Amino acid sequence: MSSNQTRHIRLTSHPDGMAHRWPLRWAAATPAGRGPVIGSTTRLADRNVIGTHGGSYSVYRALAVSAGTLSPLQRPDLANTHPVAEIGPHPQWSEPGKIVSLDPWGHLAQQVFDGAIAEGIDIRPSIAVTQARLNMAELNSLMAQGSLKPDGQVLHPNGDVSVTKIAVDPVWWLPGIAERFATPEHSLRRTLFEQTGGMYPELVTRPDLEVFLPPIGGISVYVFGAVADLARPRVRLTCRVHDECNGSDVFGSDICTCRPYLIHGIEESVRAAQSGGDQAATYFERTECVAGVQDARFQQLMPDVLHWLGITRIHRLVSMSNMKYEAMVGQGIEVGERVPIPEERVPMDANVEMEAKKAAGYFSEAVPDPDLLRDTIGRPLDRM
Amino acid sequence: MSSNQTRHIRLTSHPDGMAHRWPLRWAAATPAGRGPVIGSTTRLADRNVIGTHGGSYSVYRALAVSAGTLSPLQRPDLANTHPVAEIGPHPQWSEPGKIVSLDPWGHLAQQVFDGAIAEGIDIRPSIAVTQARLNMAELNSLMAQGSLKPDGQVLHPNGDVSVTKIAVDPVWWLPGIAERFATPEHSLRRTLFEQTGGMYPELVTRPDLEVFLPPIGGISVYVFGAVADLARPRVRLTCRVHDECNGSDVFGSDICTCRPYLIHGIEESVRAAQSGGDQAATYFERTECVAGVQDARFQQLMPDVLHWLGITRIHRLVSMSNMKYEAMVGQGIEVGERVPIPEERVPMDANVEMEAKKAAGYFSEAVPDPDLLRDTIGRPLDRM
Repeated sequence: MSSNQTRHIRLTSHPDGMAHRWPLRWAAATPAGRGPVIGSTTRLADRNVIGTHGGSYSVYRALAVSAGTLSPLQRPDLANTHPVAEIGPHPQWSEPGKIVSLDPWGHLAQQVFDGAIAEGIDIRPSIAVTQARLNMAELNSLMAQGSLKPDGQVLHPNGDVSVTKIAVDPVWWLPGIAERFATPEHSLRRTLFEQTGGMYPELVTRPDLEVFLPPIGGISVYVFGAVADLARPRVRLTCRVHDECNGSDVFGSDICTCRPYLIHGIEESVRAAQSGGDQAATYFERTECVAGVQDARFQQLMPDVLHWLGITRIHRLVSMSNMKYEAMVGQGIEVGERVPIPEERVPMDANVEMEAKKAAGYFSEAVPDPDLLRDTIGRPLDRM
Repeated sequence: MSSNQTRHIRLTSHPDGMAHRWPLRWAAATPAGRGPVIGSTTRLADRNVIGTHGGSYSVYRALAVSAGTLSPLQRPDLANTHPVAEIGPHPQWSEPGKIVSLDPWGHLAQQVFDGAIAEGIDIRPSIAVTQARLNMAELNSLMAQGSLKPDGQVLHPNGDVSVTKIAVDPVWWLPGIAERFATPEHSLRRTLFEQTGGMYPELVTRPDLEVFLPPIGGISVYVFGAVADLARPRVRLTCRVHDECNGSDVFGSDICTCRPYLIHGIEESVRAAQSGGDQAATYFERTECVAGVQDARFQQLMPDVLHWLGITRIHRLVSMSNMKYEAMVGQGIEVGERVPIPEERVPMDANVEMEAKKAAGYFSEAVPDPDLLRDTIGRPLDRM
């Protein structure tokens, strides 16, 4: 690989045996000990990862460069992008194996690596922390019904909800990912290369590069209340972990229950924030909703973002998924009550998906009779 | 590259000089002439593209294989997945340069390549066409106010909206993409490789492979009314083209106007469907909403999906974006009226974004005075 200025293209790099100037020591206790994640596409000699920043957006960035609307040397202006809330450092950041799929220093890159940045090293944040207000029609309806009441702090009279929004890009430490999936690292690397049709040969040629920035979407976290309280196990924490489902979350498609679940999670979080507990709703841009099918979803990496926030105990988990519950508990996070969605919130047609999920081992207080499952059928196509 | 069964890994392939058994002749008039898109990760000799199916999901598929929850040889069960609505073939499918970023035969792969599939060739659809019902709280409110009225066909008394949903995965014909961006193909290939930090060396080693399946999200199309009518220029067509914005579309974040625009587009589409015209809302999983910033978005590839649907004329375009308008007109699609969002639909704080967009050349009936722009400011952080 080379810069745009030269004609030589290196198809893949190989370890050169020289000590790298910017070694990454994952889970080191200090940022200086850990070192900066450098995925620059311009200063190639500094790179210490496979892939580059921005997930899937790197492909669009390439198109924008091709179209001449973006300079290949462009660096984002990071002035005034300091996090609006302090997060960490938490003990989990340096416990080996706790966090393997994000960079715990990702929101602090500018501060903790300011010396290297001043020197010209192309170091970018992988986490953004901002404040925002949400407004969702369903919450307005709950307020009109008196089920949610404005307090002027969390929920405003016009229906706005004050939140801290955190956007997290994936940063994968491959040895830890392999361990989480109970597979040898070299198999993981090879499978990532082969199942993508040959993406990033460095996955197999550079075993010395342990960090991969995969071209996938990230995680959004919405916190209702004080972010710092998430790390205090005595403060009651209500949490929903939600997998993205474009069809339902955005358009309210009735073949699944994703948006009703999301609204329920946010409603419970708002209510809990008002009563003095702290809340988080975590949104993974990642899975598609496949009604009634045991799909390829997995939750092994999901607890990382909870560890990053310093969470050790979730008092109320707003989810029926055994996979999510087991992933959290398996990663050492205590889970108290599990809160199911009220029946009346489930759209009629989505009962197909609900019954299939319950039968597949999703948590619910009522376990359906397999014989009755045959009677739960969707609306015929001619009644669409 | 090799299958999981052998130890040999080929880091990149090279043209071998032999005629490929499955050549792709983009924009050929018949599916047999065009040939099937083969991105198999198991039968490597059949491959005739760079990359693989599923966009970003190929990375998750790799993790599921690593975790042992998915067989690397798994092929999806495509029984009963025939499209529920007939789409095409339309003349645009074989007009050179009209469609360069999706496979027009992608929804028909099973039918038109049934012989090769029966022979064991791993050919997968890249477009899915289904029927669904949407239910959005904002539409329910409009119905309660009497602004939308149920008709039992498009809009049901419970607020459900009947739609045809089409999901389109990206399939890029690189010579056509390069032409669309007015850049030489070899530069496009090199920039795609370099700006992604070295993804897919075949972009540079295989100039004979003209098709790339990029690891990015796709497009969703929601059609209100008869899909076949979209290709009839005399049937009045209302259309919104919407770029994904997770923060607003899902959570109603008030720093931008994306969800209000989306709702407005759907409302206009429902109303038009009820009056006998046909409508489409097209949703691109692609851009992030950056308030007030001239970002790296581009619309050059957007018209492809309109061409694929056979659209030649849009009577009412529900969008203020000059970029979208110019991309459509530049690609030969007639656009009649342009419909702005009613002022009262814009959340107060989003006026920051709106004024910035208007100043940046977004269409609106009122062009703001640059001097007044300074007076449009967001809510201070301490009032969040």
